[in-house]
Amino acid sequence: MLNVVIVGPGLVGAALIEQLVAHAQSPRFAALPIVVVGLINSKAMAVSPTPFSVADLTQWKTKILGGSAAAADLAQFVESLASIKGATAVVDCTSSDAIAEQYPAWLSKGLHLVTPNKKAFSNDISLFRRIQELSSSPTGPSVYHEATVGAGLPVLSTLSDLIRTGDKIVKIEGIFSGTLSYLFNSFSAPGATQKFSECVAVAKASGYTEPDPRDDLNGMDVARKVTILGRVAGLDVGTDTLPVENIVPEALRSVSTAGEFMGRLSEFDEHFKKLNEEALASSSVLRYVGFVDGLGNQSSVKLARYPLDHPFASLKGSDNIIAFTTERFPNPLIVQGAGAGAAVTAFGIFADLIKVCERFGTSPSEPKI
Amino acid sequence: MLNVVIVGPGLVGAALIEQLVAHAQSPRFAALPIVVVGLINSKAMAVSPTPFSVADLTQWKTKILGGSAAAADLAQFVESLASIKGATAVVDCTSSDAIAEQYPAWLSKGLHLVTPNKKAFSNDISLFRRIQELSSSPTGPSVYHEATVGAGLPVLSTLSDLIRTGDKIVKIEGIFSGTLSYLFNSFSAPGATQKFSECVAVAKASGYTEPDPRDDLNGMDVARKVTILGRVAGLDVGTDTLPVENIVPEALRSVSTAGEFMGRLSEFDEHFKKLNEEALASSSVLRYVGFVDGLGNQSSVKLARYPLDHPFASLKGSDNIIAFTTERFPNPLIVQGAGAGAAVTAFGIFADLIKVCERFGTSPSEPKI
Repeated sequence: MLNVVIVGPGLVGAALIEQLVAHAQSPRFAALPIVVVGLINSKAMAVSPTPFSVADLTQWKTKILGGSAAAADLAQFVESLASIKGATAVVDCTSSDAIAEQYPAWLSKGLHLVTPNKKAFSNDISLFRRIQELSSSPTGPSVYHEATVGAGLPVLSTLSDLIRTGDKIVKIEGIFSGTLSYLFNSFSAPGATQKFSECVAVAKASGYTEPDPRDDLNGMDVARKVTILGRVAGLDVGTDTLPVENIVPEALRSVSTAGEFMGRLSEFDEHFKKLNEEALASSSVLRYVGFVDGLGNQSSVKLARYPLDHPFASLKGSDNIIAFTTERFPNPLIVQGAGAGAAVTAFGIFADLIKVCERFGTSPSEPKI
Repeated sequence: MLNVVIVGPGLVGAALIEQLVAHAQSPRFAALPIVVVGLINSKAMAVSPTPFSVADLTQWKTKILGGSAAAADLAQFVESLASIKGATAVVDCTSSDAIAEQYPAWLSKGLHLVTPNKKAFSNDISLFRRIQELSSSPTGPSVYHEATVGAGLPVLSTLSDLIRTGDKIVKIEGIFSGTLSYLFNSFSAPGATQKFSECVAVAKASGYTEPDPRDDLNGMDVARKVTILGRVAGLDVGTDTLPVENIVPEALRSVSTAGEFMGRLSEFDEHFKKLNEEALASSSVLRYVGFVDGLGNQSSVKLARYPLDHPFASLKGSDNIIAFTTERFPNPLIVQGAGAGAAVTAFGIFADLIKVCERFGTSPSEPKI
């Protein structure tokens, strides 16, 4: 049996709970007994020595974190996990830096960690290395973070398999932002007529962008994903040293509101139109990509051109695509599909929890804390 | 520690031994101690209670299976594994039906199984079910066969993750034969000029086909892979009931030699040319695909048309491509890359062995047999 506690159940956590409830009612549960025993959000928390019932989980907002729940206190929450028998995994669904810094303490208590939170793996490399060190023993604790890159797509598991079986990474290249994928798939295609500012407006209206689209266009989210891939591949990469092409026009970087930015973006339509026409003139399209250089020191995040028959050119919607070029795969191994969204992110977390359950949840054992 | 024995080390087994030797000399070995303790081919065998040395493995043909080795006897070989302490995985690198039928007996002895041999999973469904039953307990034994479909590409692991987390498979569609991928990628492309018989001749000369290319063109290899995918997805599929489009012209199915077949194939170039022209006239190309119907009963293997901007149309070389359309991935999750070859097949086996090692190789335990 694997006990799961969820920190910061928002959209993704709610989707995960929904998937775990469905699992608890399926015949597969017998082979993979994964149960929820704790929830904490910014206001309330609850830990139970026995699994929450399906009935309670189905209405967790009121029944578990509602009126009678204790006030949130993360330190106390983690402390109370000591009373849970057997393997326990903490799922951090926040995007908090402060919570990411708790991971080493949690791992030291024998707690497993599964998270879509990119921070611990893309902030200072010393934190990454500490986590790696604490999770390097085959007897645990373990850390899985598939959903930090490409949501549920098998990206980090594939990279990890390549690395651990001794393949040599030549390069990893990909479109890692659903927002920027959508934007350039619509803007840069033969026959496309929408102006760049219009594409951004549509993406924003469709909920594909951050509240301020500059938080997508500045490339920092992609830089974090490139950092994670590079580090998992054993490279010394960091967002502080990675060259990142910020495609927010310089004049608009300091304007104070998203509204003002959106209002003035059309002033730069000519600039993007020119870039696009240059690409199309050479039978290519523009794509915003992350690039991990496995051989040298040229990892980067940039707007680049790809020929029309390249897999990156035929990408649709807001899909991600990741191409691993290695010694064994000189013609790259490619993974593509939805790389954002609550259900597919929860899927990535759930698949990680299954790995933890298979490795550590098979025999009843004493509390590890 | 995970003990590995290899049955039928040929090209793939040799590549696997090479990768395991490199692993034994890498720092990763400490976390994933995977050692080789037995080898058997059609002539000789050797089992050792202690791991073979790197020096012996590097020259296994002479040093392990050479002069002083015992004569091959599979039953006795498996019997002798009882003396090996700890978790042991048998890697079946043959394509033998008879050996596949031994799997239930091996599993009953507590041996883990990792194999690229498609037979057990695509022959009679009763054998598949028996194996599934014997490997369904979380405490083992376990069966992994990633390399039966798409070699080392993360195909079955992805499907298994989707299924086990409760996603609903709508369809799985793919190009599963490296040979037929190469053939139609060269034959059916805008501007391609080679005749069909010429494409087959080049594929044969390049070593991409079976000795008799009809063994590729009859679709049976693809039918086996569709069967495996369908069964892993929980469907009742079998090569005996699956509609399979055999593209060997009827008049050539009974000619006795591969040479005669190759000599007469050009008589049918017009037939294939016409199919291709019809496809191209509608801005499509021909691709030989396997199709798993997750909702109904329409699984099949067939020559089909795909529009030029479809990911199947831009496939290169002899790559495989697999698209999973599910409830969570209405726009499919796609995996593509080399789906054949010794190094990438060995990679798939090795990645499976790591899973077994992580699950069962962490604590020293008594012999399981």
